[in-house]
Amino acid sequence: MELKVIAYARNGHTDKFGIPRQSRDESPILTRIVFEPEYRVAEALRGIEEFSHLWILWGFSEVDTWSPTVRPPRLGGNKRMGVFATRSPYRPNPIGLSSVRLVGIENGELIVSGADVLDGTPIYDIKPYLSFSDSHEDAKNGFAEETKNRTLEVVLMTAQDQHETTMRPAENTLQEIYYILGQDPRPGYQDDPEREYKLDYAGYTVTFFVKKQTVFVKKIEKE
Amino acid sequence: MELKVIAYARNGHTDKFGIPRQSRDESPILTRIVFEPEYRVAEALRGIEEFSHLWILWGFSEVDTWSPTVRPPRLGGNKRMGVFATRSPYRPNPIGLSSVRLVGIENGELIVSGADVLDGTPIYDIKPYLSFSDSHEDAKNGFAEETKNRTLEVVLMTAQDQHETTMRPAENTLQEIYYILGQDPRPGYQDDPEREYKLDYAGYTVTFFVKKQTVFVKKIEKE
Repeated sequence: MELKVIAYARNGHTDKFGIPRQSRDESPILTRIVFEPEYRVAEALRGIEEFSHLWILWGFSEVDTWSPTVRPPRLGGNKRMGVFATRSPYRPNPIGLSSVRLVGIENGELIVSGADVLDGTPIYDIKPYLSFSDSHEDAKNGFAEETKNRTLEVVLMTAQDQHETTMRPAENTLQEIYYILGQDPRPGYQDDPEREYKLDYAGYTVTFFVKKQTVFVKKIEKE
Repeated sequence: MELKVIAYARNGHTDKFGIPRQSRDESPILTRIVFEPEYRVAEALRGIEEFSHLWILWGFSEVDTWSPTVRPPRLGGNKRMGVFATRSPYRPNPIGLSSVRLVGIENGELIVSGADVLDGTPIYDIKPYLSFSDSHEDAKNGFAEETKNRTLEVVLMTAQDQHETTMRPAENTLQEIYYILGQDPRPGYQDDPEREYKLDYAGYTVTFFVKKQTVFVKKIEKE
């Protein structure tokens, strides 16, 4: 089967670094789903506003090979699991699956929150979330369980000069940045308190380091 | 993106008629996922046994066109909804999504229950179900909500001749047939108590009719 791109995702994740590893209901990060001309048909969305959640099927970028085993980041990156036991991109058909919250519909575009995708991600399908079929609250999450509630505290170190406040992101962007940092974006649970990281999000570059359970934000600058 | 078939589904649904309209956790219907040679790699399943539920992404057969609006069977087949607000096959990329319960692994094949797919359905991906990301117990199901709990009682009319008991399906197959009938397989909520239906399942042909909330099973014969 040949997949057609029906839409593209637009959000602040211009860089892979910082994208949450899974969609989360509580995520404040907004993504706009912009349909391609052929699929920009108002009728095709009729009734969708009645649903609180949607599924999006999307494409992992830059993946052209699969591997029978992969190293899930949540296991520290040093343990191999079968690719079908993970949500890794390195699968035979690199399709991602995310449940998102439907926030609104504007000019034929869907606005959703919680999508764990890069800006510009191709979208192949949108489906309504059906709780009686899709929700299994008590499902056993296997090895993925152990770290699901791990979040860090985020501290902004800058009570910077007055002139710098004009560079501060809008409050909602700031909240999005805090959320991303709280999810611990460091790769494979690196734990070097001396190491400085840079994260690009929504036109800002955020410089931070992590000590134990706290993220210290050193700088937030316009890119 | 060109999708590769990684496996085929094998189950008793040799006919479209009778396939539940959505996957259901309580479904007793077993499906065997048989990998294609290239993907029959034991390692690729490592760790999957730790999960209670999986996602399968699969292909709708015989669908080569999409329609911006469709008539969901659960609305009686006479009301049009946007295709992206439904799980209809008539979508730009005819991919189905079903959560299934992992029942076992045998000879490199996955045995799952609750898959709402035809025997021989191509499978494109298998992912672990992650409750903290995929489960939204309180999601609003929109117009799909109204009929979600509608099930029928099933009555077997045959206390047939002794010699016919040798033709009776095994108990588990019988339970599967009862389950299918209880879900009301009639198209678009037809309601003609005089009408006889025939359903093929697991090598048997089941003849039944429906009066109000009860399915009367007239005959179960080997095909």
